[in-house]
Amino acid sequence: MNKISNRDKILTEGLKVVHERGFANASVRDIVQAAGVPQGSFTNHFVSKEAFGLEILDIYFAAGYELIRETLLNDDLPPLQRMGAYIDANMSRLNQSGMRNGCLFGNFTAEASDHSEIIRTRLVEIFGEVQGAVAYCLKAGIAAGEISPTLDCDELAGFFVASLQGANLLAKAVRNPEPVERFKHVLFSLILQRAG
Amino acid sequence: MNKISNRDKILTEGLKVVHERGFANASVRDIVQAAGVPQGSFTNHFVSKEAFGLEILDIYFAAGYELIRETLLNDDLPPLQRMGAYIDANMSRLNQSGMRNGCLFGNFTAEASDHSEIIRTRLVEIFGEVQGAVAYCLKAGIAAGEISPTLDCDELAGFFVASLQGANLLAKAVRNPEPVERFKHVLFSLILQRAG
Repeated sequence: MNKISNRDKILTEGLKVVHERGFANASVRDIVQAAGVPQGSFTNHFVSKEAFGLEILDIYFAAGYELIRETLLNDDLPPLQRMGAYIDANMSRLNQSGMRNGCLFGNFTAEASDHSEIIRTRLVEIFGEVQGAVAYCLKAGIAAGEISPTLDCDELAGFFVASLQGANLLAKAVRNPEPVERFKHVLFSLILQRAG
Repeated sequence: MNKISNRDKILTEGLKVVHERGFANASVRDIVQAAGVPQGSFTNHFVSKEAFGLEILDIYFAAGYELIRETLLNDDLPPLQRMGAYIDANMSRLNQSGMRNGCLFGNFTAEASDHSEIIRTRLVEIFGEVQGAVAYCLKAGIAAGEISPTLDCDELAGFFVASLQGANLLAKAVRNPEPVERFKHVLFSLILQRAG
């Protein structure tokens, strides 16, 4: 029982520390200190820092996927409204730290993807899952007559995922959500409206 | 003479090491080893790793600005052609490492902007300079009748800078330039063409 509890503390507090400081910058000592557990506890529960990194990515993704389910994949709402709600929900999530921490997936891609093939592969899968949900929503938008049937939904979904990552990154630099708001405005006023 | 030479070696080789491994991951020892200079040489020439970081950002930006001058700001070529050439030149530059290293500005934003206010401020300035050059090119495109005069050039330039950063980031994850090619295609086929 105690073992499970320490493991959870390391994951919960360690995710926060890595999100704030970066994966390389956050040492195992920082992580166990934040979790309030003995240093040996980390090696008891994780074979490596990389294995721990993979687990916190999955925890972060599970929370993000909840937002995706409530918005992009939510067939009870009109498709374009879902897309706007997804951007807003994501922005609110990142703005809990005044945009300072950025998106964990973007941070890991920038700093850790070249050091760990297994983390890089997982990031590619995660971006692919988000892209799939955006494409699903765009296709629903075509079916509902909200956007033009000439749109290449898969291409535009890939563009969406990358551009939102870029907006999150710039928002981290300027420490305000303006780049994300700009992405949303250009998407709706120049890409989707004109396609409609 | 020797002092200047060691300083240059540290900057040239240190930039490569930081670009490959990340700022936090690249230790001063890694940097002086790559430069082939004694460890003390680093502290002789840089008051801190942060000061060194600022200098390599400026070296990287000087090379990037050369591309900007040849493309976005080059009044001898038609504006939209310049914009396409800028995206291509940037992609070629990042593809020298098979997209593995990504853009140094994006990497620094993701991992170092929250640790150093002076680096964050410099990154915001750099992104602002690129955005200014893109806006200049878009305004030239309007003047030349290539794109619609209803476009908000400053907004679209900010969107461009963020989306290209995002495309570079995704390209780093998948290790191929496809996300950047997709950005270019969506920009020209859905945003600029429709605005024209």
